Amino acid sequence: MCVFCKIVSGDIPSSVLYEDEFVKAIMDISPASRGHVIVLSKRHFENLFEIEDEVAARVLIVAKKLAIAMKEELNCDGINLLQNNGEVAGQSVFHIHFHLIPRYKDDNIQISWKPGSYKDNEAAELANKISGRIK
Amino acid sequence: MCVFCKIVSGDIPSSVLYEDEFVKAIMDISPASRGHVIVLSKRHFENLFEIEDEVAARVLIVAKKLAIAMKEELNCDGINLLQNNGEVAGQSVFHIHFHLIPRYKDDNIQISWKPGSYKDNEAAELANKISGRIK
Repeated sequence: MCVFCKIVSGDIPSSVLYEDEFVKAIMDISPASRGHVIVLSKRHFENLFEIEDEVAARVLIVAKKLAIAMKEELNCDGINLLQNNGEVAGQSVFHIHFHLIPRYKDDNIQISWKPGSYKDNEAAELANKISGRIK
Repeated sequence: MCVFCKIVSGDIPSSVLYEDEFVKAIMDISPASRGHVIVLSKRHFENLFEIEDEVAARVLIVAKKLAIAMKEELNCDGINLLQNNGEVAGQSVFHIHFHLIPRYKDDNIQISWKPGSYKDNEAAELANKISGRIK
């Protein structure tokens, strides 16, 4: 059984903020910053490619409630919602989870990239190709 | 009118991948990596604190469909879902949007932090305090 399934079942203890039929929100014990929360699907799906619609529909509604409560309690300057798919994307536990990361001025969190560009019609062509694969 | 409201209305052109009653997905014209997509709420909400539940419920279902199609077409190694709230969190347009960022080995995207820790019962106490503010 995966570590997040054990947290969902309670076999591994955690500090729980919220729980309903579909999701469970806990404190990250190795926080990126003070008050870092993880929202877990209670059912095991590896990632965003696999999550079922009824769970997906609940996650952001819960994330919103949590984010409002976090901002009030923590008095943070911002919040990142982050969900990683694949090891190269930083996923370390292969049970879908959503980070709510409070941000504070001068924290040590890096989320950055060098903006690229497309030439000619590349963006429009990619949009058409991806769009054609949506099911 | 904000720049994303103008993209939603079509006053500013974009490469559209998907559109329904609640959301519109477009190619980011300054991509973090090849195939970077942005999912917009069609209605103007500044951030996660403000988004309405019916829109929030749709976003992840659409993000899942898009992520599957992106992975197929782009053959990327992973995908990050990222939504920023507040300038300190990297939000630059104050109309809620969700990044779907394809990840490739050796890309130049930085998403990292130094894991912290809590002492004694700090995590449990924070969980209780935040939980008590959830509405």
